[in-house]
Amino acid sequence: MTDRLLAREREVVERTLARLLPTDAWPERLHRAMAHAVFAGGKRLRPVLARIACRAAGGDADRVTEAACGLELIHTYSLIHDDLPAFDDDVLRRGRPTVHVAFDEATAILAGDALLAEGLLLLARYPEGEEWAGRRAAAVELVADAVSARGMVGGQMEDLEATGQVAGAASDPHTRLERIHRAKTGRLLGASVELGAVLAGTAGDRRAELAAFGADLGLAFQIADDILDATASASELGKSPGKDADAGKLTYVTLYGLDRARARLAELEGRLVASAARIEGAGGELAAVARFVARRTS
Amino acid sequence: MTDRLLAREREVVERTLARLLPTDAWPERLHRAMAHAVFAGGKRLRPVLARIACRAAGGDADRVTEAACGLELIHTYSLIHDDLPAFDDDVLRRGRPTVHVAFDEATAILAGDALLAEGLLLLARYPEGEEWAGRRAAAVELVADAVSARGMVGGQMEDLEATGQVAGAASDPHTRLERIHRAKTGRLLGASVELGAVLAGTAGDRRAELAAFGADLGLAFQIADDILDATASASELGKSPGKDADAGKLTYVTLYGLDRARARLAELEGRLVASAARIEGAGGELAAVARFVARRTS
Repeated sequence: MTDRLLAREREVVERTLARLLPTDAWPERLHRAMAHAVFAGGKRLRPVLARIACRAAGGDADRVTEAACGLELIHTYSLIHDDLPAFDDDVLRRGRPTVHVAFDEATAILAGDALLAEGLLLLARYPEGEEWAGRRAAAVELVADAVSARGMVGGQMEDLEATGQVAGAASDPHTRLERIHRAKTGRLLGASVELGAVLAGTAGDRRAELAAFGADLGLAFQIADDILDATASASELGKSPGKDADAGKLTYVTLYGLDRARARLAELEGRLVASAARIEGAGGELAAVARFVARRTS
Repeated sequence: MTDRLLAREREVVERTLARLLPTDAWPERLHRAMAHAVFAGGKRLRPVLARIACRAAGGDADRVTEAACGLELIHTYSLIHDDLPAFDDDVLRRGRPTVHVAFDEATAILAGDALLAEGLLLLARYPEGEEWAGRRAAAVELVADAVSARGMVGGQMEDLEATGQVAGAASDPHTRLERIHRAKTGRLLGASVELGAVLAGTAGDRRAELAAFGADLGLAFQIADDILDATASASELGKSPGKDADAGKLTYVTLYGLDRARARLAELEGRLVASAARIEGAGGELAAVARFVARRTS
């Protein structure tokens, strides 16, 4: 079921992204750089999560696809800036040259800036109609907070401090790793699930339950990522593997070893599947995504 | 009147910024970098404009100060990224080291990213209360569009193309200069005035009138900036003057000469004061700001 579900969901997102990403003649170079990064064959996990969570919360997923696509633009912005020479200095992303390599550094910084603004714009604009205004404002607030200094960008900052790329206060590595994982990847993935609840009009305990599921899913995603970096080949990953260890990055694998990382991931998968069953009953879509995230090979 | 009005307005904005800018212990370095850039003694023109325009449109300026401060954070983000080595490579801003000099390049990029997210977050969150939700969503949409690839970031892209810093299509310099001015500085200044109308609940012709006033004001601001760069001293500017000509920048002065730039600015000032009188009657606050923008010496 998982493969078919995700392929179908991804197809809906892909079509909507193609329709929404600006392609006006001006500014031509910037729009090309944005498209280069957005249409590089990603899994579209964040918008897919928002749609599936919306359905699980009793909402109409097809009404929220445009807003969900805002998450993908914001995720893409974070990848572009993370690849820059001042950060990971990556030349390859999903098997293609990164934006600063294909274009130049200034264009890459601007393309990231523009995708962040455009992503939050989509959340403020869709779904259209006065009756949705309250949910739109709540959606922007949720996602902007998740990628703020208290969330994703703070996690990127601490990641740089952990590798010694910038001067930072000394810190216990276990605390530091948990902060990096939770903030850098976990917050936006968690917010993607919670966005589904917000756009479905769900509040209170049910929203909190979906938010908690999202936070766990974000952690599972990051541990799986750390395991993949340590074990997969370049052709599977579409980027250079083993980079984490080479760069002295703090990861679940470098800190706890491969066996404990795998055990922790299996434990998280069990918890995710159980809480998915509580949230969606027999529907099984959230559980399917949880299994996909924990077992992915690329 | 102008000086007292602007000093009083600026004081309100300053206090609100100090209350709203995150200062949590984590992520310490990032929060310090953000504060370094935000509390460097700017004129706070954009939030002041939003408050004054809100009053001119019959709204309560004190209800919209938090939202208006979002504009200042977004403006500050654009300055930080514009100063980076890949852009203007400026070491001084308002008489202090720029963020990438005081901290480092990665921290400067992240501080800009975080201020953009935080600025749009303030617009999505304030004024609080369900009855404001429609205006909050409209405010985010307006400002995010103004700083998108179609607005401010597109203008930065074209500015780089004009100086030959990145490869760009050949273009008539007059068309190019107009696009740069309108997009790079004009759109956010224009949106600041229009934001006052949106938050006051003003729509239709009156909103359009304020938006047009804002667009003209943005153009006047940019021509005044070009004149100042060509004529003021470093101590007046708090940054290196004459940089535009040295860098081969396309400006109103390098393209049309100082006399024609001054004449165009005087003409714009007259038009601004006349349309301010139509909008606000005898109030005179919009007219005072227009005069300040056209005649500023730093």
